[in-house]
Amino acid sequence: MGKRVIVVGGDAAGMSAASQARRANPGLEVVVLERGHHVSYGACGIPALIAGDIAAPEALVALTPPAVAARGIELRTDCEVVELRPAARQVVVRGGGTWRYDYLVLATGAAAVRPAWAGENPANVVTVRSLQDGIDLRRWVDSAGGRRAVVIGAGPLGLELAEALARRGVDVSLVARAKQLLSGFEAPDVEAVTAALTAVGVRPLLGRTVASLRCAAGRVAAVVTDQGEVGADLVVLALGVRPASELAARAGLPLGAAGGLVVNDRMRTATPGVFAAGDCVEVPHVVTGERVFAPLALTANRTGRVAGDNLAADSLGRASSQRFRGTAGSLIAQVAGFTIAGVGLNAAQATAAGFTVAVFSREYHSRAAYYPGGRPLRLRIVVDRHTRRLLGAQMVGEEGVAGRIDVFAAALHGRLTVDDVYHLDLPYSPPYGPVYDPVIDICGRASLEL
Amino acid sequence: MGKRVIVVGGDAAGMSAASQARRANPGLEVVVLERGHHVSYGACGIPALIAGDIAAPEALVALTPPAVAARGIELRTDCEVVELRPAARQVVVRGGGTWRYDYLVLATGAAAVRPAWAGENPANVVTVRSLQDGIDLRRWVDSAGGRRAVVIGAGPLGLELAEALARRGVDVSLVARAKQLLSGFEAPDVEAVTAALTAVGVRPLLGRTVASLRCAAGRVAAVVTDQGEVGADLVVLALGVRPASELAARAGLPLGAAGGLVVNDRMRTATPGVFAAGDCVEVPHVVTGERVFAPLALTANRTGRVAGDNLAADSLGRASSQRFRGTAGSLIAQVAGFTIAGVGLNAAQATAAGFTVAVFSREYHSRAAYYPGGRPLRLRIVVDRHTRRLLGAQMVGEEGVAGRIDVFAAALHGRLTVDDVYHLDLPYSPPYGPVYDPVIDICGRASLEL
Repeated sequence: MGKRVIVVGGDAAGMSAASQARRANPGLEVVVLERGHHVSYGACGIPALIAGDIAAPEALVALTPPAVAARGIELRTDCEVVELRPAARQVVVRGGGTWRYDYLVLATGAAAVRPAWAGENPANVVTVRSLQDGIDLRRWVDSAGGRRAVVIGAGPLGLELAEALARRGVDVSLVARAKQLLSGFEAPDVEAVTAALTAVGVRPLLGRTVASLRCAAGRVAAVVTDQGEVGADLVVLALGVRPASELAARAGLPLGAAGGLVVNDRMRTATPGVFAAGDCVEVPHVVTGERVFAPLALTANRTGRVAGDNLAADSLGRASSQRFRGTAGSLIAQVAGFTIAGVGLNAAQATAAGFTVAVFSREYHSRAAYYPGGRPLRLRIVVDRHTRRLLGAQMVGEEGVAGRIDVFAAALHGRLTVDDVYHLDLPYSPPYGPVYDPVIDICGRASLEL
Repeated sequence: MGKRVIVVGGDAAGMSAASQARRANPGLEVVVLERGHHVSYGACGIPALIAGDIAAPEALVALTPPAVAARGIELRTDCEVVELRPAARQVVVRGGGTWRYDYLVLATGAAAVRPAWAGENPANVVTVRSLQDGIDLRRWVDSAGGRRAVVIGAGPLGLELAEALARRGVDVSLVARAKQLLSGFEAPDVEAVTAALTAVGVRPLLGRTVASLRCAAGRVAAVVTDQGEVGADLVVLALGVRPASELAARAGLPLGAAGGLVVNDRMRTATPGVFAAGDCVEVPHVVTGERVFAPLALTANRTGRVAGDNLAADSLGRASSQRFRGTAGSLIAQVAGFTIAGVGLNAAQATAAGFTVAVFSREYHSRAAYYPGGRPLRLRIVVDRHTRRLLGAQMVGEEGVAGRIDVFAAALHGRLTVDDVYHLDLPYSPPYGPVYDPVIDICGRASLEL
């Protein structure tokens, strides 16, 4: 009989691990235990589901249960693992059943941050993390059980959700402690986004600290801030996520500084037979080399694939060629007609990491100056003064951001200097950019000034 | 008195050289001698001028004569250099005047190919190279002196011009010897472009060899092909360009295998005091290292800047830090709603260059599969089987091509392998691509299969 792989968690990382394990060694018995009802869904599409751009939640499901079965994977949904027993190579599920494993993959993901003031979880205070969360929020919008939503948090997800709700006719307030949207970006770069978001009907209430929620009959009636109350039929918490690593921690697996599981570049933990992948682990950053929490879809998919391939190779007594090479913290989001993107470190992060930083920023045009239809494009790069190496880049604009930002991602992986990027022969045509593309031009300026 | 720089040719390379020379050494006397009437214009915008997307030709002029004067550059237009006397450090202009120089920059550009069958240059057989050519063609379209144009040549410029004319209501036939549009691309990749170009009113007549032009009263009445005649009120030759290096060749400066001037990476020729830049020189290819003819706007601008900086540094007894690092033959064009882009070598070029080639191609989607509005995207990469290094990439689609192709340009400069590109952490969000972006996915497939 084949060896058994238990995968805890059936989203991007877990299903990638399960699928790759079976592909690489069809002799393995692979069982996925998923606490929720859905597996392998595109969580990044939830704002589009809320907005109604995507009609049915099923569209977000990448792998249906029959497709999972066709891959030879045994799937148990609504099956929560409540305890790991690494010494016995067992996991315990809610209700008391146990599963023995030869290989274990922990893919428990991330959990939405819920601050203390959010209290005893009133029914109308929600986070949006799982597909079920998205379905529930979409239902709320469709049934129009209330018309005032307060979104708390001005990161990418908060903005996407606020816009989606506003576009559906909901009265939306966006409350955040920061004085600007997207605090990882510089204020001048996101001013136009704030205006555009306001134009689609979102009311930004920035620089406000939430003190508490005022409840009546078990439901929140208002968000109480240091600058007054904001009435609410629904409160959406979009305050970020943290690694969902408690299950592993309770079993004695060590966590890193960022709260994620510690793994090597094969996604192996120090515990025999135990791999981990996805949002619950810490991964190396390509710029600093330090282990970070990077809850990003591509990283989850990739680390899952690496875990699956390595455990399968191990089961065959071979070595896998697959390693995870690191994250660049790469981010892109569409908000109110703008594309907001960043890769690598911003100035504050780079300074905190010990670099002596030079920043170059400039407003460009997305097309040749004379070509009709172009839009402004703001670009900012962070450079190591000593080595001239690029450390990060951020871009905001209505066109020409996606793809263009990718060049900087490649530059970070390749440890390119601003001089290197200045010399890139990027294809040019007036509908797509000026002859010295913004990417080239800003690095040329840095190259001269440094 | 300062040293004198004579620049022959006032377009991208010449004006870049002149401007950079003055910037780097304001003590230089810089004189630009331009044969035509305009300097420093965006020739790549001419199709948009013909189409009417750009109202006035002036919009394409990057530097007006007053702006040139403000840079301290003396500009002589309608002033053709007819002879170089390198031994005497002189140039001779039409009419017999001579100019002495300390430094000479040859920026004579490229000339449109005119085959023998085009004969004695009838008035209604045109090439489109200079801004004046564009103005003349626009005037023809505006005055509607004829309604049937035959464009000969199915490269990017031929397609752009054919589309522009068709959009203005001209009856356009596109005649080409090749059996497909864009012979540097593979046939399946450009099928959809052919259909779209036909839909905007262009009649592709492919696989036809032009035998002659049938003239009457000094004007062409029809293009005679091996498959019959095509009636024409205007014939546009779009058969490519060659280096305009005759002037230098007549003075004994050596030409390379591709017919361009031989320069080093500082754009210096072997002749004392003589630099050359732009379409008239040969430049190293970043993939092969070989000297090639690469008549591209960015390369012209850049090599001009390098020439200007190096001669200025030389005049100051210093060394310039500026070098030209090479071309990737990068190309992008917008045709009938499609974006067509390529960087590096195609399979035939790579094979000819001695590589053992593997090709991977696939149709992708420009957005996440579930996200509305996405369009097909065809991607093809050429890889060195031995080293796994990327040698080239081509992309065709209605969205998501520009920018995305730039990653491959960066990969070529960085000599990245398919494994390296597979591991790039490219930012992901459903409106912009699938989680494994096409760029990553195709390299991942290559990585597994090689």
